[in-house]
This record gives sequence, C-alpha cells and structure tokens, in this order.
Amino acid sequence: MWENPLSESQNVGCLVEHNDKVLLCKRKIEPSYGLWTLPAGFLEIGESAAEGAARETLEEACAEVEVLSPFAQLDIPRIGQSYIIFRARLKTPHFSPGPESLKCALFALDDIPFDSLAFSSIIVTLKMYIEDTKSGNLKFHYCTINKRPGASPSDPGGFVVDQRLHSSK
Amino acid sequence: MWENPLSESQNVGCLVEHNDKVLLCKRKIEPSYGLWTLPAGFLEIGESAAEGAARETLEEACAEVEVLSPFAQLDIPRIGQSYIIFRARLKTPHFSPGPESLKCALFALDDIPFDSLAFSSIIVTLKMYIEDTKSGNLKFHYCTINKRPGASPSDPGGFVVDQRLHSSK
Repeated sequence: MWENPLSESQNVGCLVEHNDKVLLCKRKIEPSYGLWTLPAGFLEIGESAAEGAARETLEEACAEVEVLSPFAQLDIPRIGQSYIIFRARLKTPHFSPGPESLKCALFALDDIPFDSLAFSSIIVTLKMYIEDTKSGNLKFHYCTINKRPGASPSDPGGFVVDQRLHSSK
Repeated sequence: MWENPLSESQNVGCLVEHNDKVLLCKRKIEPSYGLWTLPAGFLEIGESAAEGAARETLEEACAEVEVLSPFAQLDIPRIGQSYIIFRARLKTPHFSPGPESLKCALFALDDIPFDSLAFSSIIVTLKMYIEDTKSGNLKFHYCTINKRPGASPSDPGGFVVDQRLHSSK
C-alpha cells in the first residue's frame, strides 16, 4: 500500500449544492456497492485538487460544476489516504449516473441517508456540512479519521474523528 | 518524478505566530540554500498533515507548537507537489535552528524578506497571510501555482497563481 503513487492516495470530491440540496451518487462498484457517496475519487497526475474534484463529478454524475470553495480535508493516516472536498454548484441543472454510479439524486439535508453512506469520510463531511449550514457559518474543516482495525469502510461506528480544526472565521 | 510515493509529493508546514510575528528558517540545505522558508517538509508515512507540520517545525526550528487551524493548500500540478500550511503557536517561547537551518527568527509582517524567500509556495502563503491579517479576516485558501518552465524555485517572477478559492467566511 505504501508504494502507491500520489494519485492513489489523495482523494478529491465535490459537495454539489443545488436548491438547498446536495448531490449524492449510489455506487455501482466495490467497495461499498449500492451505498451513497459524494462524487469523489483519486487525484490524477498533473491535475490540481480542484480540477480533480470537478472531473470526478463529471465522471460519476455527468454533472458540470463550478468549484466554489474548499470545504474539508480529512486525513486517514492508518491507511495512507486523504480526502479533499470542495463545495461546488451545478453549471446547468443536469446530472445522470456515470458508469460507476447506479443512480444520482439531490437530497435535502434532513433526508441524507446516513444509514447507507459509503465511507466514513463521507459521513463526517456531510455531518460537518449540515452543522455549518444550520449555523449559517460555513468554514473549512480539517480532521483525521482513525479507523478501528477490521471495520468496514461504511461502518458508522468503525472510526473516531480526531485533531478537529477549522478555519478561523 | 511521478513514481514518488505520497511522502515525497505532499509538503506540510506551519505558519507559527508569536507576538504578531511569524517564524522563518534560513535554509542550510539545497534547494534554496541561504533563503528563508516557513518550517515545512515532506509528509511521512502514517502521520496526518497536522502531525507532519508540527514535526517539521520541531525538526527545523526546534520549536514545539500547537497547530491552530488550516490556513492554505497550494497545489503545484506541473511538478506533482502540494503544500498544506497550518497556523500554529509556540507552546513555549523557544526556538533554535535544527540541522537543516542556518538560523531561525521571528519577523514582523512588514519585515518579511520577500526578496529572499526560498519557494514560490512560501511567497504566496505569506502574501495571503499578510492580506488576511491586515483585513482582520483569516480564511482558508486554496490555489494552484503554475511555474514557468525552467524558473528557479525561489524566483518571485517564475510562477503565476491560479484557481484562487477560499473558505466562505
């Protein structure tokens, strides 16, 4: 695992906002087949994190987005992975499942399927986003996720969040 | 270059604040020997970005710091590198040059030696920090740095900053 190049360790994705809803994709691939995720995937060689996040959103949800602001970095040091998530908006109100998605849908914040999210990073990101949105104070968040050895990627009780920091304002 | 593992592509560092000054280190190693930098270096296997930033500060400036908040991510896609910089504070008012530093010193924001900074990422970070501090609005910043082919790492005119984004508030 530690021999992987940058492109297999750095995940980038978008939290796409549209009419007070967020865009989720139901995974058509393992791991976490059939569970919901933000459009996200591995950063590729030569692209910036923001470019990679927009590309993954196009690939997984056939959605063209404008990246608005950095929202969160989540490090998972135990498995050598890190997620960088940007807020984004649809350039046109169109999306549809790409080859790695069973379906794509917009969810109101109160309707997010927390019992069937694909990854701990997605659970944590969406919880922070809901909290910020309800308080009217969107910040940039940094945290680490420490997975319990042997826990599945989607187990809501399989990890603890540590080293929580956020931007000053 | 693209075969490098994560640990050689992700740079992490601290912007250490003390009495309205910031801590800089004069490099005792190449590249950019003799020029000033924020304490920063490559993320190591198994550590989080925040942990790596504190470790680099201990190694380069013998300073124990508390990481306060994420301040900036700067991607340099052309060379496959990225910097993540955290604001931090000294736990005790002590620092001294580590083996990779000629000296370490606190600089008032008006006295930062912009004509002898080691890397484009440090130039950009310090400019954003001064701007935020003077406006009283510290944000988290994301940007890309596009280096002019052949430019030295420390050439103030050797790059352009692109894809500027920042946290919402």
